[in-house]
Amino acid sequence: MTGPPSGDIAHLGHVHLRTPDPDRSLWFFTRILGLTENGRSGDSVYLRTWDDYEHHSLVLTAHETSGLGRTALRASSEQALHARVKALREAGLPGKWEEDEPGLGPLYVTHAPDGHEIALYWESEWYEAPPELRPGLKNQPQAKPGHGVGVRRLDHVNYLAADVALEAAFAQDLLGARPTEQIMLDSGRIAARWLTFSSKSYDLVHTEDRSGRRGRLHHIAFATDSRDDILRAADLCLDNGVHIETGPHKHAIQQTFFLYVYEPGGNRMELCNPLTRLVLAPDWPLITWTEAERAKGQAWGLKTIESFHTHGTPP
Amino acid sequence: MTGPPSGDIAHLGHVHLRTPDPDRSLWFFTRILGLTENGRSGDSVYLRTWDDYEHHSLVLTAHETSGLGRTALRASSEQALHARVKALREAGLPGKWEEDEPGLGPLYVTHAPDGHEIALYWESEWYEAPPELRPGLKNQPQAKPGHGVGVRRLDHVNYLAADVALEAAFAQDLLGARPTEQIMLDSGRIAARWLTFSSKSYDLVHTEDRSGRRGRLHHIAFATDSRDDILRAADLCLDNGVHIETGPHKHAIQQTFFLYVYEPGGNRMELCNPLTRLVLAPDWPLITWTEAERAKGQAWGLKTIESFHTHGTPP
Amino acid sequence: MTGPPSGDIAHLGHVHLRTPDPDRSLWFFTRILGLTENGRSGDSVYLRTWDDYEHHSLVLTAHETSGLGRTALRASSEQALHARVKALREAGLPGKWEEDEPGLGPLYVTHAPDGHEIALYWESEWYEAPPELRPGLKNQPQAKPGHGVGVRRLDHVNYLAADVALEAAFAQDLLGARPTEQIMLDSGRIAARWLTFSSKSYDLVHTEDRSGRRGRLHHIAFATDSRDDILRAADLCLDNGVHIETGPHKHAIQQTFFLYVYEPGGNRMELCNPLTRLVLAPDWPLITWTEAERAKGQAWGLKTIESFHTHGTPP
Amino acid sequence: MTGPPSGDIAHLGHVHLRTPDPDRSLWFFTRILGLTENGRSGDSVYLRTWDDYEHHSLVLTAHETSGLGRTALRASSEQALHARVKALREAGLPGKWEEDEPGLGPLYVTHAPDGHEIALYWESEWYEAPPELRPGLKNQPQAKPGHGVGVRRLDHVNYLAADVALEAAFAQDLLGARPTEQIMLDSGRIAARWLTFSSKSYDLVHTEDRSGRRGRLHHIAFATDSRDDILRAADLCLDNGVHIETGPHKHAIQQTFFLYVYEPGGNRMELCNPLTRLVLAPDWPLITWTEAERAKGQAWGLKTIESFHTHGTPP
Repeated sequence: MTGPPSGDIAHLGHVHLRTPDPDRSLWFFTRILGLTENGRSGDSVYLRTWDDYEHHSLVLTAHETSGLGRTALRASSEQALHARVKALREAGLPGKWEEDEPGLGPLYVTHAPDGHEIALYWESEWYEAPPELRPGLKNQPQAKPGHGVGVRRLDHVNYLAADVALEAAFAQDLLGARPTEQIMLDSGRIAARWLTFSSKSYDLVHTEDRSGRRGRLHHIAFATDSRDDILRAADLCLDNGVHIETGPHKHAIQQTFFLYVYEPGGNRMELCNPLTRLVLAPDWPLITWTEAERAKGQAWGLKTIESFHTHGTPP
Repeated sequence: MTGPPSGDIAHLGHVHLRTPDPDRSLWFFTRILGLTENGRSGDSVYLRTWDDYEHHSLVLTAHETSGLGRTALRASSEQALHARVKALREAGLPGKWEEDEPGLGPLYVTHAPDGHEIALYWESEWYEAPPELRPGLKNQPQAKPGHGVGVRRLDHVNYLAADVALEAAFAQDLLGARPTEQIMLDSGRIAARWLTFSSKSYDLVHTEDRSGRRGRLHHIAFATDSRDDILRAADLCLDNGVHIETGPHKHAIQQTFFLYVYEPGGNRMELCNPLTRLVLAPDWPLITWTEAERAKGQAWGLKTIESFHTHGTPP
Repeated sequence: MTGPPSGDIAHLGHVHLRTPDPDRSLWFFTRILGLTENGRSGDSVYLRTWDDYEHHSLVLTAHETSGLGRTALRASSEQALHARVKALREAGLPGKWEEDEPGLGPLYVTHAPDGHEIALYWESEWYEAPPELRPGLKNQPQAKPGHGVGVRRLDHVNYLAADVALEAAFAQDLLGARPTEQIMLDSGRIAARWLTFSSKSYDLVHTEDRSGRRGRLHHIAFATDSRDDILRAADLCLDNGVHIETGPHKHAIQQTFFLYVYEPGGNRMELCNPLTRLVLAPDWPLITWTEAERAKGQAWGLKTIESFHTHGTPP
Repeated sequence: MTGPPSGDIAHLGHVHLRTPDPDRSLWFFTRILGLTENGRSGDSVYLRTWDDYEHHSLVLTAHETSGLGRTALRASSEQALHARVKALREAGLPGKWEEDEPGLGPLYVTHAPDGHEIALYWESEWYEAPPELRPGLKNQPQAKPGHGVGVRRLDHVNYLAADVALEAAFAQDLLGARPTEQIMLDSGRIAARWLTFSSKSYDLVHTEDRSGRRGRLHHIAFATDSRDDILRAADLCLDNGVHIETGPHKHAIQQTFFLYVYEPGGNRMELCNPLTRLVLAPDWPLITWTEAERAKGQAWGLKTIESFHTHGTPP
């Protein structure tokens, strides 16, 4: 169960995010994070990080509440996609094929146990930058934006869920994810688990939702190129009135350098820098943190902020 | 001669720069360097770095050629200003009072031996940021720009001059500058000298001009907050077609981390980061580099690029 | 009162620190901070940062308690030294000449109102590195250490004192320091003031001591070359069991990037990075922070840790 | 051929390096790079980076010449190991099982076409740090060293080979590597190819050897956590007399931030920082750089140094 990932899922593709304040949210994602708009459709705006080779990294949709919509995962091949769909169907999970996103082929849409929408797909058109966004180097999809933080990629999603073990089993058994770290309460209940599809140390996280709500979001994370980018991001947020929840600091778990802010729609966003840490060991042992260890706070001693345990979206 | 600065000049105030390509130069200074426009007058645009407490850091003027106009130095007090003016007059240098810049009181305008225009002033209105540029912290003049490199301050000016020793004598004897480092050729001629008015290790540099021209510019430098900012700047220049001349690397002399680029008008610009180096010693000995030492290249071995010895503006 | 510094004091020279755990303290200063030992005398070890041009930056002395001994300030010239001594004597402060430190000439030793020992001196031998510590560049006193954080310089001292206004008056009126920022309580009492002798934004800080004790230390700070050095320092402290009190984070006041740790003797140490911020304006207005502003925490929202208001040395 | 890696090889395990100056080489790897010694055997010293979970990352062996010995690659499982051995045998390549390294099970030893020794293995004991090297966080194998650069991991090996296409075919067809970038000369000959086994953008590189020699090394690379670490490394090398060949700068190919130095035994070492760049796309297209593109130099314009095309080890 803690072996290497099956390899059928290659990586996190993109997510759909809902915002009750679409204009300000769009300002945040484009002007502060430095995402590039790549088309609109209805109430949705397609946004991309500069190092994404696909059409979009984030779909921002006007909605009456905040919260997460679809999480789209790209399969490693056509065969791998069908292997995963077969596994999901054999597990009795309802799902259906849709073809409703620009730049992508059919997506198989289903739901994780807590209700989060999950879509798997294989076909994806490689992004071609328009002339004004042509990069200086041919091994890069587009020019780095000259404004905002300039995040490199969508890094991971952290879901709130009633039963973390159930979510993790879904991700591991049906999607082929590999768990790398977790928090186990003294009661034996898993309070959070981190999972990966690649050499990254995590792509998905499930965190216990104590609110009784379903399908909620803890946060979405974008990776920066350096810790300096995150320190600069904190200044940008400060000067532009973006609420900083906590950080910058270094997580004990996964050792990620982080900054948590709320985008104007209320969703928690993480800016993260993993340095050069990777999980390359094929027999990486799932690392378990106890309640006592968690009580020590983050890596350098920062206490975990209370809202981190209470704030999710929709609220 | 190598004692502490007289203290009469507090710091480099701003410079006037000429460009034959004003639109593209303005794009460079605002979108790439991240300067903020603070008014226009005739063919000139007033620009400021985010940490400048004065009205402007750079005056960009459309002109038939590239090159440097005025260098404005702020005195430490009204008395200090008059002491310097008196010294200049006693040395027989022609000069006159002008009041032709917004936000500033009278400037005493004269010329250094090679013909560069030098202005001294005391009165200066403190900048008040408009609401959209208010900073998050009250000890900062304006918000950091969300775009471009976001340079903190105008750092220094490097002048080309026929006779470096003559220029340095002017700066030392009449302006009260302190020399900190120099290059002495085997012939005994000074090929370059670095001088300061403050705890910074240099504010002005004079470099030998072998072209026979007068009053030319080697480069103007803006300081960034970190070396990471300079690495990011190099990427921005690469992706936006700004010509990189050399760097990033570390100077042997002064140990500054640097990047040299040409703004679209043809003037050489340095982005520099001095780390936390300061010259605090009141009896700092003027450090002399020989030809042989200079032949070793920059700090980590980068050879000095040929154009560094030939390109000046106007060309 | 808030004009430029008199210029008679050039910079903070060094401090004497007391430790009840001299072996472990020495380990901390040499192996973690990366100071270099430069001689011993009795119970004292002379230590220097790599960019110090003088004999020592810190004198570490075995003592029954922790706490601060002498603070030594270098004058700008022989004349400046005597001008300050004259001012101190005319103010009726007792003092005497001593010549008890290697590499230095006579020190005029007196005490600030709260009892902290202050020494002024002019004569100072420039450090000559032994062969194994020769730097690669001639404008640097010694090679950077290959171990520990490698702090560049002693940056500032933060004193605890019963009456901050009284201490500040001493520093401003008798030493010629310039105040740059302060905290004023709603009662009108000054809770802390930052003062400088140079273009640095502060060299000395006085913080209100609510304990009723006298002559205590809040912290001593060493400057690093980059914020990355401070993040690396936090990891070194974590892996080596050095107590991290708070940070890394950015101060609202002075905007310094900081990390506070306790050296094994119990004294609070700050590792700080000011980026390239300087106070160059000769008419810099003393900036006052209110209680309400201080309650907002540090620049990016970190709450000020309780021990920051209670821990001083000796305890 | 350019599809995702087979997944049978998990990652680069370690390399054996030969040095004619073992004492100085050991000094370089431990004191400058910050590797930790983990045992000796005969003329060999086992060294490890702080984030390696295995017994050793580098085996340094006294030898009459410089150069590369074995490259050891860890398989993803026992089955994967045997699948690869089967493939090698079916291709007619001679090989044999050896069990000659501490901490590892049997290694299947063979040779790539140009003569470089390649070993595949599965069994590997997880490293347990002795008390003095215990890390502060349980998801890290050992404490970061307090000295030297503190490289995180062995990152990649760059082999010199007479026929790059032949080497690449071996790595792709028999080891299951995936090519990500290459240089193609105008003649159609491949001058260099970069290949990966994981989400890293490369683990192995083959570069054309024009010397007529066989089995030589271009360089070995260690990854640092940040670009700042590489800038600090350059200073350490400068102050300690380690020859810097070129850099720091950013590669156009793979966009790695780099510094090349020669360890005292003469072998070229790269310190590299890939930032957060990964190749996650399962259909990543092999990117081809032409001669004309290569002539532009590195990313920010640094010309490729001549010795880069001529120096290999043994010389």
